[in-house]
Amino acid sequence: MPQSHTVASFDEELQYLVRRIAEMGGVAERIVADSVAALVNGDTDMAQRVIAEDAELDRAEREIDERAVVVIAKRQPMASDLREIIGSIRIASDLERVGDLGKNIGKRVIAVQAMTQPKKLVRGLEHLSELALTQLKEVLDAYSSRSHEVADAIRERDEEIDAIYTSLFRELLTYMMEDPRNITACTHLLFCAKNIERIGDHATNIAETVYYMATGSQLPAERPKEDETHSVGATSL
Amino acid sequence: MPQSHTVASFDEELQYLVRRIAEMGGVAERIVADSVAALVNGDTDMAQRVIAEDAELDRAEREIDERAVVVIAKRQPMASDLREIIGSIRIASDLERVGDLGKNIGKRVIAVQAMTQPKKLVRGLEHLSELALTQLKEVLDAYSSRSHEVADAIRERDEEIDAIYTSLFRELLTYMMEDPRNITACTHLLFCAKNIERIGDHATNIAETVYYMATGSQLPAERPKEDETHSVGATSL
Repeated sequence: MPQSHTVASFDEELQYLVRRIAEMGGVAERIVADSVAALVNGDTDMAQRVIAEDAELDRAEREIDERAVVVIAKRQPMASDLREIIGSIRIASDLERVGDLGKNIGKRVIAVQAMTQPKKLVRGLEHLSELALTQLKEVLDAYSSRSHEVADAIRERDEEIDAIYTSLFRELLTYMMEDPRNITACTHLLFCAKNIERIGDHATNIAETVYYMATGSQLPAERPKEDETHSVGATSL
Repeated sequence: MPQSHTVASFDEELQYLVRRIAEMGGVAERIVADSVAALVNGDTDMAQRVIAEDAELDRAEREIDERAVVVIAKRQPMASDLREIIGSIRIASDLERVGDLGKNIGKRVIAVQAMTQPKKLVRGLEHLSELALTQLKEVLDAYSSRSHEVADAIRERDEEIDAIYTSLFRELLTYMMEDPRNITACTHLLFCAKNIERIGDHATNIAETVYYMATGSQLPAERPKEDETHSVGATSL
């Protein structure tokens, strides 16, 4: 590794990680936005592009991991710099997973195409993904500015995503019951909605990591990252 | 470098992390086994215990994270010791997520209870969870023995889990189509099966981390952690 042993160069190494995370964030946002667009428009070409693009995130995560470990071993950073580097590893892992979830939506486009999607459903999915994308964007901004207040707020807003997801879940069950020919497509849409809800959870994870990077302590574990659909149908069937 | 004060005590700190990971592994295995048992037996009391038990994994992950960072900052470990500690953070994160997935199965027990589950389905779910648990157990053994060969084999065997999951997916769709009254319960069972499939993915992640800890390099990214159900219904509906 050709870095020279100056303090400036250590900062450069940290800045490199920050830049790579920001790039990963941009790719992850695009994958999520495009996969949902492909889904609601039945655009299989776009779905193929999304699926291919995900490999970029896998590569980036590995590279960030390797770099982070090299930087720790070589520089032996203390306290806040160490948190910065450990945080990069965690955020890269969340963004890689966001890409996986987007790719999985892309892969379901063909199966869902066979169904005429009711407008209400499409709007619900779009709304869900807009919220998840806003979360992702804001949490990446919080990462850039190291703002732990924003991170805190984002975590709480995740509940809105869960509520919309639960209502979509009920709606999809209704469509299946109304017409069994919808079952296969609706099942894929259920998993797409679940994927978007999970993307919101990963944004929350990133918010927690940003808080940890900024403050050195962890947010209390009060907010469970858990959808509430398990209670749907628990009492009546 | 302040590593000189008692090498033994640094070893103790590493051993502490190893022990805590092993404990987490034991709890995660129990949560998965019990949640599936609660599901197939409709045992809501057991489901409640599983849900409560998951909090232990959340606490353990936070503690391991905090400890790991303190150890790195204080000891400034090089190469293999650093990999060991970074690996602990990653494995704790996977095990925490395994617990979440088990807890989510537990939460669906009540909703699924309303349905008389066909024997074939129950056997399929049990078989899937046995495979996932075997993966988990073997990967934790590989972690204890730092065997990268075992880790490598486990990663490849994950494909069997995916195949069984896909066949369960098809079967559940069939039950829904045969009788729309099964739709709600079958949907919850679909998510349970998906959760078990994801548990297999986390075992694979751990295998990759063990390989990294043992060798210092990463397994090539050839094996996608991806279920193949997206193609179900893609051509016929």
